[in-house]
Amino acid sequence: MENAGGANGNQWGFKANEELKTASGITVRGVLNSLLENLNKNDTRPLIPLGHGDPSAFPSFRTASVAVDAIVHSVRSARFNCYSSTVGILPARRAIADYLNRDLPYKLSPDDVYLTLGCTQAIEVILTVLARPGANILLPRPGFPYYEARATHSHLEVRHFDLLPAKGWEVDLDAVEALADENTVALVIINPGNPCGNVYTYQHLQKIAETAKKLGIMVIADEVYDHLAFGNTPFVPMGVFGSIVPVLTLGSISKRWIVPGWRLGWLVTSDPNGILQDSGIVDSIKSFLNISSDPATFIQGAVPQILEKTEEEFFSKITDILRETADICYDRLKEIPCITCPKKPEGSMFVMVKLNYSLLEGINSDMEFALKLAKEESVIVLPGKIHKIYQVLKRFLLPNPLILEITGITVGLKDWLRITFAVEPSALEDGLGRMKAFYDRHAKKQ
Amino acid sequence: MENAGGANGNQWGFKANEELKTASGITVRGVLNSLLENLNKNDTRPLIPLGHGDPSAFPSFRTASVAVDAIVHSVRSARFNCYSSTVGILPARRAIADYLNRDLPYKLSPDDVYLTLGCTQAIEVILTVLARPGANILLPRPGFPYYEARATHSHLEVRHFDLLPAKGWEVDLDAVEALADENTVALVIINPGNPCGNVYTYQHLQKIAETAKKLGIMVIADEVYDHLAFGNTPFVPMGVFGSIVPVLTLGSISKRWIVPGWRLGWLVTSDPNGILQDSGIVDSIKSFLNISSDPATFIQGAVPQILEKTEEEFFSKITDILRETADICYDRLKEIPCITCPKKPEGSMFVMVKLNYSLLEGINSDMEFALKLAKEESVIVLPGKIHKIYQVLKRFLLPNPLILEITGITVGLKDWLRITFAVEPSALEDGLGRMKAFYDRHAKKQ
Ligand SMILES: Cc1ncc(COP(=O)(O)O)c(C=O)c1O
Ligand SMILES: Cc1ncc(COP(=O)(O)O)c(C=O)c1O
Repeated sequence: MENAGGANGNQWGFKANEELKTASGITVRGVLNSLLENLNKNDTRPLIPLGHGDPSAFPSFRTASVAVDAIVHSVRSARFNCYSSTVGILPARRAIADYLNRDLPYKLSPDDVYLTLGCTQAIEVILTVLARPGANILLPRPGFPYYEARATHSHLEVRHFDLLPAKGWEVDLDAVEALADENTVALVIINPGNPCGNVYTYQHLQKIAETAKKLGIMVIADEVYDHLAFGNTPFVPMGVFGSIVPVLTLGSISKRWIVPGWRLGWLVTSDPNGILQDSGIVDSIKSFLNISSDPATFIQGAVPQILEKTEEEFFSKITDILRETADICYDRLKEIPCITCPKKPEGSMFVMVKLNYSLLEGINSDMEFALKLAKEESVIVLPGKIHKIYQVLKRFLLPNPLILEITGITVGLKDWLRITFAVEPSALEDGLGRMKAFYDRHAKKQ
Repeated sequence: MENAGGANGNQWGFKANEELKTASGITVRGVLNSLLENLNKNDTRPLIPLGHGDPSAFPSFRTASVAVDAIVHSVRSARFNCYSSTVGILPARRAIADYLNRDLPYKLSPDDVYLTLGCTQAIEVILTVLARPGANILLPRPGFPYYEARATHSHLEVRHFDLLPAKGWEVDLDAVEALADENTVALVIINPGNPCGNVYTYQHLQKIAETAKKLGIMVIADEVYDHLAFGNTPFVPMGVFGSIVPVLTLGSISKRWIVPGWRLGWLVTSDPNGILQDSGIVDSIKSFLNISSDPATFIQGAVPQILEKTEEEFFSKITDILRETADICYDRLKEIPCITCPKKPEGSMFVMVKLNYSLLEGINSDMEFALKLAKEESVIVLPGKIHKIYQVLKRFLLPNPLILEITGITVGLKDWLRITFAVEPSALEDGLGRMKAFYDRHAKKQ
């Protein structure tokens, strides 16, 4: 903009909210942006994006045409140009309840379903609702850093339990028991797993439910990758154990339909005993939705057709290609000595691999590896350790004055990388080939 | 849901965030829901919704077909199924800058534009960004209660200045000067006005800019009703005065295109001197957008076509019908003695009218009037006084401990009603006829 001169910044009495920086510095988007800024502009090869879970631009991952037709039909009908109700329109909620009921031993009603702007807003809603003074939440490490960002923003204390690579990334349930106290409100699991590509067995999910019940905390089950399971373990929704422990199921059409830009998700109370209702959580969800944004109404209007009419062939085409690319990824990574993959991925779009710096010359951190790889090979992968963030905890025990506490927490896994295999197979081959060449160039001379 | 028995609510260690109720109880949606619950189910006449600004269901207010075509084209292209960048995609930001530049003496760049989920999220973003400890914001009374709800949620203190009915609902600038102190961060204006239907003159807007400059505060200009001006005063965007005072312009396609369900809006820094950049506000907006939801990418993809291709005929058809319905409304209300309208509406979709209870039997508040009217005549209008809310203010002046303060504030105007005239003319005639019959039945016997 042209500078019209005159006014002087110093006279102005406003300043921005400083805490927002802390919260946003730890998202995947934030880290990927730094990597993209590091690309070599003279490299004429195509960029290979193995950093994030959005294969929608690749021909093999094009969404189902019935889904597109459903949107077109909905917007052309002119019936959905209006504001939506704050919880979402009834036909969409009913369709989502029916969709989830296919895999549950009890029946969800449309009133158990709240429409959200993708799974992202479902996370925002539940973390805001749970953020009473002094409360803490148990999050998986490695996990999805948006949870840490939102918890930080809401002053909800974060405590991390580990996922165990030697046990196929199962939850360290002893650690969960050791971490929980009377101020713990919930345990988060992501299944199928981001970033580990694992799928939990029925038995492990049941153990998680029983542990949470014992501790008196609810389970937040992030199932944004629902049904993207292509190994030996079938996908089982956590809601199956809703009679043992109250479950909040979070999901969306972003991943299974490969339309993350459509921003349609849900938050569901999978809780046949009505505990979330009795404890005020349901009212609080509704209150927060009253002051929150809704998914576009005509996209809501398309949900029944999308969920009911998408053919099985589309879903199996997508899991087939994910199985193929997961295989390519696992096999080609084995040829790169500085990288170890503890478990072949069985679900979602990702795999976590460990770096061995003793085989590398002049590379000593996951961020350094990712930055050099971006610069030299135009391949983007996500460093495992996102950032050390400073969390401002506000605890207040009325009528005592508030106590302010500052803690540093590390999000993610140091010395690991997250790699997406959900890209066009040819691009994946190309990217992993470049990673091999990168290793060859940087390998420590014996 | 069936009750599977077993678990007991009392063993669970979670409780909901109590503050959310306060914040959501004061939205227009919340109040309208109570009125809708009060309808007489045996009344076979159609419901006449004069309560909210969403005429999209009426044939006369159907959106432009080029806008629908733009959406269809965008979703069919398969180019916009991906995640968006956090600030919005460039072609959409450029189109919005160009759209606003038609009326500005300087040039906005796409970097001044942030895409939001309707104007609603633009309000959320800017109030969150400004909510540092101790800060206060000046809001108009009557106004749009979402500002109060969001400010409460972010612990931003609200101070109200009056709009003056005797002066065509101009801002009481003396009150603004008296309210502001060194912790005041911004002044909000809504132009064209909700709920008053006024349109500010160039001269009044310039005075607002000069007052804000003197006080060292920015102006937040809610222009969600931009160009919906059908009286003698033309719409002038506040950004015209961006060289006097930094302006945050909030807008959307919701009202001018009659598509509130599409959820596409913007937040724009109309600030040729770069003061918002220098003060950290711009960085803070970007940080918050990093952890916020984005409008659906394919809707963003349709924005250039929508803004560039909509014909002038569509816009004039809409302002013509609003002029017609505003006239009907003003004339028919004159026939109802207990209602006074201080100013004929010239813009937006609303008019504020005052109740005179001395002419009524057994009706003593605006809420009572609205509830009985809903029950007896199936006509919905919005009571002027929304609620008395309790605002929790947290001020912290580090290193001092936090001070907690509870204040009661009244949102809106007691003894007034807000009436929407943006409905099909026949429905408006019907609704106002029923209001007259309601008055006749409840008029105090002489
Ligand atoms: C574990 C997890 N949860 C939630 C999300 C957000 O999903 P959505 O795109 O539906 O908002 C993602 C996206 O990558 C994710 O990986
Ligand atoms: C003054 C005002 N601001 C903002 C909004 C919200 O606009 P949108 O529907 O674009 O989110 C409204 C909606 O009625 C409004 O009246």
